[in-house]
Amino acid sequence: MRDGQGGWPLDDRGAAYGDGLFETVLLRDGSPLLWDEHLARLVRGCHALGIPMPAERELAAPLAEAGPGLVVLKLILTRGSGGRGYRPPASPEPRLRWQLATFVPAENRWREGVRVRHCRLRLGIQPALAGLKHLNRLENVLARSEWDDEGVAEGLLCDSDGRLVEATAMNLFWQRDGRLETPRLDRCGVAGTLREALRERLSIAEVEAGPEALIAAEAVWLGNSVQGIWPVVRLDDADGVERQRWSLAPLHRGFQAEAHRLLGYPLPDPT
Amino acid sequence: MRDGQGGWPLDDRGAAYGDGLFETVLLRDGSPLLWDEHLARLVRGCHALGIPMPAERELAAPLAEAGPGLVVLKLILTRGSGGRGYRPPASPEPRLRWQLATFVPAENRWREGVRVRHCRLRLGIQPALAGLKHLNRLENVLARSEWDDEGVAEGLLCDSDGRLVEATAMNLFWQRDGRLETPRLDRCGVAGTLREALRERLSIAEVEAGPEALIAAEAVWLGNSVQGIWPVVRLDDADGVERQRWSLAPLHRGFQAEAHRLLGYPLPDPT
Repeated sequence: MRDGQGGWPLDDRGAAYGDGLFETVLLRDGSPLLWDEHLARLVRGCHALGIPMPAERELAAPLAEAGPGLVVLKLILTRGSGGRGYRPPASPEPRLRWQLATFVPAENRWREGVRVRHCRLRLGIQPALAGLKHLNRLENVLARSEWDDEGVAEGLLCDSDGRLVEATAMNLFWQRDGRLETPRLDRCGVAGTLREALRERLSIAEVEAGPEALIAAEAVWLGNSVQGIWPVVRLDDADGVERQRWSLAPLHRGFQAEAHRLLGYPLPDPT
Repeated sequence: MRDGQGGWPLDDRGAAYGDGLFETVLLRDGSPLLWDEHLARLVRGCHALGIPMPAERELAAPLAEAGPGLVVLKLILTRGSGGRGYRPPASPEPRLRWQLATFVPAENRWREGVRVRHCRLRLGIQPALAGLKHLNRLENVLARSEWDDEGVAEGLLCDSDGRLVEATAMNLFWQRDGRLETPRLDRCGVAGTLREALRERLSIAEVEAGPEALIAAEAVWLGNSVQGIWPVVRLDDADGVERQRWSLAPLHRGFQAEAHRLLGYPLPDPT
């Protein structure tokens, strides 16, 4: 793990209130994947929070430090110091920090698919923050704390009205009646960059749906811009009781192939 | 401003995810006010988040540094470093930091009351975090960004179902038909320590109510453990248009007196 410019001052608003944003970017040999999508989401976040967007040159500075192979760059941008309590300073001076860490993708999850479970925690509905990768992530932390079975790769989250949203750190996709679908993210959740890129290239309907949509689905996937696409082969309820299974089929591989092309990942051989 | 032990490492989970809690404690000549209530809330927060509660000795260490007069102690407790992404480490090593700042209360607000407005932002409903003073405070930051008129002291927040919850940094109280009431905080909001202490001493009903409750109220107050109690003399809507006025009356002063006794604050002379 390497990082830039040390830690956070005690009065940084990121540390005090989670008043900031982050991006987690996959680099291959120092080149960022889905960089335009990451920048676009950061622009949206800065606009929503009223934080000045740094110059792309600043954001790209750590790329030169990454070196060869697969590396994950985490960029954290906060509103900086200052303000009076929650009230932001009139002229914020944002603070940018970064970390680089070597990355090894879970190829067995690409190949064999994953088991996931429903989380008990439901995401609060907050349109003002929906879609953004902001630093208020206690819901994700609590949801991820619900299980410690290494055989369960992810947990699915519904909002407080019971609608499917995402997994704790990945977006959710499924095919139902031959149609690709993904939950709408205008009330909560993080709009992943891989999800954005796939929506530009494939016909993926953004829908409102409860967990019953998954039971009816021909295939279910989780994905993000670092891990690629994991087919879901088993879904458990929040007590760990099996609700549904899927056999890996060619239809799983087509969607995965589209995503993995964007990330330079291989399409696993059929098992 | 003085602080303890420097800032936050880059990998601290407080800075990364808002994975922690804080307390803002009023000290008079080095003695904390409502200390038991602050400790009790921190215990509840630690329990809810699964963070080990520090020894009281550690939390009290900065008291010796405070010196005379009114000082605000901010304690920030995070889950520390570690874990894999959102997943918390199995054995977290919490990190405690503190700041001390001289405090001058707004005596004119005690005396003359304040003007407040409704915020547009609505709080997301999240029972798993309700009542806690955790570090995910972007909603408060966004709400406090809705106005910059110095004549408006606070903004009132409703939840996404339209029920009154609190102000951006204070709890909300009113008297209606001779009864003291305050919003329930089991779905969102911060359960202030002054509110807790007042509920132990007075009959204050926790209610579900929309903004119409304020229009019907004989008196409205805002309060917290640092500022004391501000009577509300004018309420505006989110566009700044006046909705209601209240004249300061003896009934305002009784509630204020009870709170100010707890904080060692004077009861302002009638104007």
